[in-house]
Amino acid sequence: MHIAITGAAGFLGQRLVKHLVDLGELEGRAILRLTLIDQVEPPALDAGEIEVVSRALDITTSGELDGVLAERPDVIFHLAAVVSSAAEADLDLGMKVNFDATRSLLEGCRRHGLAETRLVMASSVAAYGGELPDVLDDMTAVQPQTSYGTQKAMCELLINDYSRRGLIDGRVLRLPTIVIRPGRPNAAASSFASSILREPLNGEEAICPVPLDQELFVMSPTRVVEALILAAELPGEAMGAFRALMLPGITVSVAQMLDTLRDVAGEEAVSRVRHEPDERIRPLVASWPARFETGRADRLGFQRDANFREIVEAYLAERA
Amino acid sequence: MHIAITGAAGFLGQRLVKHLVDLGELEGRAILRLTLIDQVEPPALDAGEIEVVSRALDITTSGELDGVLAERPDVIFHLAAVVSSAAEADLDLGMKVNFDATRSLLEGCRRHGLAETRLVMASSVAAYGGELPDVLDDMTAVQPQTSYGTQKAMCELLINDYSRRGLIDGRVLRLPTIVIRPGRPNAAASSFASSILREPLNGEEAICPVPLDQELFVMSPTRVVEALILAAELPGEAMGAFRALMLPGITVSVAQMLDTLRDVAGEEAVSRVRHEPDERIRPLVASWPARFETGRADRLGFQRDANFREIVEAYLAERA
Repeated sequence: MHIAITGAAGFLGQRLVKHLVDLGELEGRAILRLTLIDQVEPPALDAGEIEVVSRALDITTSGELDGVLAERPDVIFHLAAVVSSAAEADLDLGMKVNFDATRSLLEGCRRHGLAETRLVMASSVAAYGGELPDVLDDMTAVQPQTSYGTQKAMCELLINDYSRRGLIDGRVLRLPTIVIRPGRPNAAASSFASSILREPLNGEEAICPVPLDQELFVMSPTRVVEALILAAELPGEAMGAFRALMLPGITVSVAQMLDTLRDVAGEEAVSRVRHEPDERIRPLVASWPARFETGRADRLGFQRDANFREIVEAYLAERA
Repeated sequence: MHIAITGAAGFLGQRLVKHLVDLGELEGRAILRLTLIDQVEPPALDAGEIEVVSRALDITTSGELDGVLAERPDVIFHLAAVVSSAAEADLDLGMKVNFDATRSLLEGCRRHGLAETRLVMASSVAAYGGELPDVLDDMTAVQPQTSYGTQKAMCELLINDYSRRGLIDGRVLRLPTIVIRPGRPNAAASSFASSILREPLNGEEAICPVPLDQELFVMSPTRVVEALILAAELPGEAMGAFRALMLPGITVSVAQMLDTLRDVAGEEAVSRVRHEPDERIRPLVASWPARFETGRADRLGFQRDANFREIVEAYLAERA
């Protein structure tokens, strides 16, 4: 089993690699080789008997992946992307990285006859937008209100069509907001969702730019990585008539997040969160759907976090 | 008012041009110039005081439309496309004409600063597919099961994003099956829908490849052309959070179509329809949704045909 991963130097990519190395197999077949691809060479790691090849490649250059595809990977995890804020700030960059590079990857797979290769792509809850119902389900229209969401939705359509035509065996997961991300606050509108927990847990101050009653649809990094792996293991037909689906997050309000922080780390931790409404961030976050019925994903075996406390405790356990 | 039309030599394009010439104005502003674009030079016509420029241009060649865009048309009707069967037979051709050429047109508009230009594109009921509810509405997910539908859906997303970013003022109409088309039967799976009426009305035989209880969602050519014009006249904001919508067709079964044929032209006409089930065509047609609630389009003033008999009688009146 040979697995290639784009965006392998990123937060999710790195976690996925570690998890795959721990598993040592996929679908009962031993993983023999991992090809890690990113614009900078992904860090090496001790992977025991698994051969790990790290490559700095520019996936926006057509044909750049030919060497990897010629080796006929069994599974490709396509995680490389520019984030929402970058795609919004620079339409051309977003189209190039988020859409054209994906199309180029699909064409590469077609050229190399990789009909059986399972391509797992990460899409996003940001594909949704506009005038939404209170609770979304698997048949809710995708009407993105960001360029990032638009580009991801276009990739979903293309992967579905290439899969339908038997050119590739694709599956796309729409990820909820991932909480708790490691690292520092950044320019992403969703940054606060991790920051209002992570910083106080680390004895630092954080800013909450949205009201307490704002709800989010969240998933822990561990559940996301498990979902990526399950997506690679499912037979393509199991996806049904469309190769993209929304993962089962849990719905949580900012107030509930801070209550959990209080339960786990005390009032002092909560007092480190400063409430500073931000009129650039508030409407963006308010436009993200927070309530879903994810029937398809549930039936396929994708797992949600049990509750928000589990998410926080998992972060603390990992940090320790 | 300067109006440019791609696909102007086609059936819809020609009808649209004639209707615009008859109107002489759009939104109360006199039409001064029509630029008709197709891969072969669209036929000239007597347009009175309107200057008509016919141009044979290959819209799949980047920059080919620059000359037209430099003249800053107020409205662009983008009808050029390869049909469903051709897009299915040749993925590259479909992507090139149906998607890349549209993207190239959007980029051209962006380059020429045509933020105010109203771009009206024709999409299709074929954007829908998969496991659909009995009645679709404006929030039903688009999960195309053809490359044509995929390419159209990708264009919808892109036009929505370019409009949201203020680079163009786009609106996209998903067309029902158009009945009665003129001409001869062709390779399109929908060909029979016109043929089982047109041929008998013209004293010829026709083949019906689907069961009598097959329902279709149909619209007359006249209503489609009126819808294109209304779409050009609406303010962009009226489209709401997403720039594509399904037009209001009417739902009719093959049995009802043949009953209408009997009412209008007698039993002899109906007897010219031979029933020959075709297992290539039947499942395709069965996959097209036939029942819609088109609330957004209705509120915006798009008109459905009053009933199927009106559609048939309009065809007869035009033929006379």
